[in-house]
Amino acid sequence: MSDTQTAAAVIDTLKPILGDRLVTSGAVREHHSHDTSWMAPSMPDAVAFPRDEDEVVAIVRACATHGLPVVPFGAGSSMEGHTIPVRGGITINTREMNRIVEIRPEDGLAIVQSGVTRKQLNEELRATGLMFSVDPGADASLGGMASTRGSGTTAVRYGTMRDNVMALRVVTPDGTAIHTGSQARKSSTGYDLTHLFVGAEGTLGVITELTVRLHPIPEAVSSAVCAFPDVASAVNSVIETVQYGVPVARVEFLDPVAIAGVNAYSGLDMKVAPTLFYEFHGTPNWVAEQAEIVRGIVDGHGGEDFQWTDNADERAKLWQARHDLYWATKAQRPGCELYTGDICVPISRLAESIAAAREDIDASFLKGQIIGHVGDGNYHTAYLIHPESKEELAEAERLGDRLVERALAIGGTASGEHGIGVGKLKFLRREHGDAVDVMKRIKAALDPAGIMNPGKMGQEG
Amino acid sequence: MSDTQTAAAVIDTLKPILGDRLVTSGAVREHHSHDTSWMAPSMPDAVAFPRDEDEVVAIVRACATHGLPVVPFGAGSSMEGHTIPVRGGITINTREMNRIVEIRPEDGLAIVQSGVTRKQLNEELRATGLMFSVDPGADASLGGMASTRGSGTTAVRYGTMRDNVMALRVVTPDGTAIHTGSQARKSSTGYDLTHLFVGAEGTLGVITELTVRLHPIPEAVSSAVCAFPDVASAVNSVIETVQYGVPVARVEFLDPVAIAGVNAYSGLDMKVAPTLFYEFHGTPNWVAEQAEIVRGIVDGHGGEDFQWTDNADERAKLWQARHDLYWATKAQRPGCELYTGDICVPISRLAESIAAAREDIDASFLKGQIIGHVGDGNYHTAYLIHPESKEELAEAERLGDRLVERALAIGGTASGEHGIGVGKLKFLRREHGDAVDVMKRIKAALDPAGIMNPGKMGQEG
Repeated sequence: MSDTQTAAAVIDTLKPILGDRLVTSGAVREHHSHDTSWMAPSMPDAVAFPRDEDEVVAIVRACATHGLPVVPFGAGSSMEGHTIPVRGGITINTREMNRIVEIRPEDGLAIVQSGVTRKQLNEELRATGLMFSVDPGADASLGGMASTRGSGTTAVRYGTMRDNVMALRVVTPDGTAIHTGSQARKSSTGYDLTHLFVGAEGTLGVITELTVRLHPIPEAVSSAVCAFPDVASAVNSVIETVQYGVPVARVEFLDPVAIAGVNAYSGLDMKVAPTLFYEFHGTPNWVAEQAEIVRGIVDGHGGEDFQWTDNADERAKLWQARHDLYWATKAQRPGCELYTGDICVPISRLAESIAAAREDIDASFLKGQIIGHVGDGNYHTAYLIHPESKEELAEAERLGDRLVERALAIGGTASGEHGIGVGKLKFLRREHGDAVDVMKRIKAALDPAGIMNPGKMGQEG
Repeated sequence: MSDTQTAAAVIDTLKPILGDRLVTSGAVREHHSHDTSWMAPSMPDAVAFPRDEDEVVAIVRACATHGLPVVPFGAGSSMEGHTIPVRGGITINTREMNRIVEIRPEDGLAIVQSGVTRKQLNEELRATGLMFSVDPGADASLGGMASTRGSGTTAVRYGTMRDNVMALRVVTPDGTAIHTGSQARKSSTGYDLTHLFVGAEGTLGVITELTVRLHPIPEAVSSAVCAFPDVASAVNSVIETVQYGVPVARVEFLDPVAIAGVNAYSGLDMKVAPTLFYEFHGTPNWVAEQAEIVRGIVDGHGGEDFQWTDNADERAKLWQARHDLYWATKAQRPGCELYTGDICVPISRLAESIAAAREDIDASFLKGQIIGHVGDGNYHTAYLIHPESKEELAEAERLGDRLVERALAIGGTASGEHGIGVGKLKFLRREHGDAVDVMKRIKAALDPAGIMNPGKMGQEG
């Protein structure tokens, strides 16, 4: 929490504007003191629930006047402590900024307030034949997904938030509302501020509105599953598939531990082996042809029991098993929680990277599994720990750090999609070197008083 | 030119390092005083031809010490005056930084020095089955293409430089060499400096090395051409094609004036009407299916004589005609030059935008044609003017300004792919509003002395 008098002055300023949408109750502040991660919680002084950009401007101006921190908060599903108000201040929860401003099917775009969630948008899009493609698993807000540069299973085909945000409205740290980008598909005018705010984790301003790209819902969808003798064979199949130009919509890797968990939890009998789940999108003919091409490729790499289906029920069952992984894994050790790693490496180094991660887990007293969005070279480790055990948490941290260090040594990144937050700050300079000083100069230029989500990227690291 | 003493001091510092690769002859300086545009030329004090990043660091440090401007220069093919040293200084010509550092087919990436041209890279890639997709027409350097956020005919399928640059090495205005991005396909770590330098037109640093994405050369390629009763029918066909999810590799619009020029110049007998040229990439079956789907769509919009071919010779002839447009147009009025417009609008507004541009030309005493990368909503006007006529140049400027003003009024951008340079500076604030102040703060933070390509974006506008 911040200096009480400063916070009180801001609250006094904002109360007449926000009324009961400015909350100082302990329960609400506690709810905004943490995210889904293991980072130490910290309470905001108050939580604001603005409904529009004007109210966000008022909040930021009040905080700028008094030097009080401002922390943007979407659905609270971030995984590295991004939204923890480590220096107190006002948390801006965007859940009431949930208006879909405009859907323009003929331009393949939607304009939404930043609190709109991806499921809400896709529900609204259903009648148009279009979809918003980015799927991080959680029903995150689009503002949060943009701020974390989020992605998920479909990024291999449709891209990440980097690729799907066309334009933004942002309130900068001095309380000015600006727009970035345009409704045109491409532009060569001006510094690319859209991409500067995407992934800035709320440290450069508050995103109030996004213009996002939409994609046609495919006419046909089919899925396939295939077991491999080893990780290298699975990964080499993916490399060859991408090199061949097959536009796979999803390609997910599950290691034997994950498969065993899914079998037990979902009553399936998949072979316990390194396994790929594929999804293909297109016309019925093209989807069938993609599956045939991939069958040929996996045959060449010792893939067994390649099974594909365009039956919606079977497909749903397969992907439900993938989506149930979180619960399936937790079921392996009752009372445990998952400590998650998230790295991305050049795909040519993926097999060795996964093998080393598996060796680390096998040599540890913790259990763990590996799953990945392997078409992008991105994968997650999940270590099963008891939340009250400091020893287990420390071991999970040790494994997670080694994972990142190996990724950085081979040209990879400390986070494929979860972000820096608090948890990965220690790796920022190791990955980006002197470029971190450039980031800090940008932060200081845009936020000289350091009020926007302080104690994070741009100030630390 | 700059203050003589300052320039002399820098030249004295650099001469021992660069030897005869630091040139002060009038002819070489004159060659670097202009680009392909109509902007007023201005001479640099000297032109440096560094071979590696260390030499670029030495040049930038010497200029930083003495406060002398530095202007990066690639192939000199920019079209809005980007490389004109409006305040003199040292022009850095990257043509000797033409080394392909590494090609990694399994990762689908290449690492190149910034003076490598797109044709050079594609020549080198031929044996790998991969290609670098961005094709702006000119054989531009990759550093220049990145700095202008360039694109071209294939952007509708494979994206612009924004989408195809994964990582950079950059010498910042204080002479520090940094790297941005990574070799991983995606990342959620740090501010996105890669995209800040892409499109910065050399005002924030000198790009010395790029890591770019490669794409598989398609197994099969086919082309189609189709005439339409009017512009709206052609554009609506494109909208429907994109909404259907057909991944057209190219879709180019030529207006009747352009078709007439091509017919006369290349000895073809295409119907003189609004016309689309398509290209499809994929497997042979998939390419045939795409063409059939598009044929169905254009039939529904009154498209006539839809002709497609996967014959390489016929295809080459068709696209040669498209590429000869520049010469075909000039042949319409001997002695003339082309004054080019370049806007991008939401595709739903494209038909009305093109119609208004045509009305403007028809009402003018100038002749002109309209061609476009219509899948992106990007098109070019070309007005035929006599270079020595001030009246004609003024009229072309008037038409070009009206074109941009209409684009901005409907959510478009002042430049789809040519950039801001000097020519479009006057539109920067009209397009980006107060965000221009954010750009200026970033520029001032990274380049407080204002030596990097001064008098352009970041300082002016």
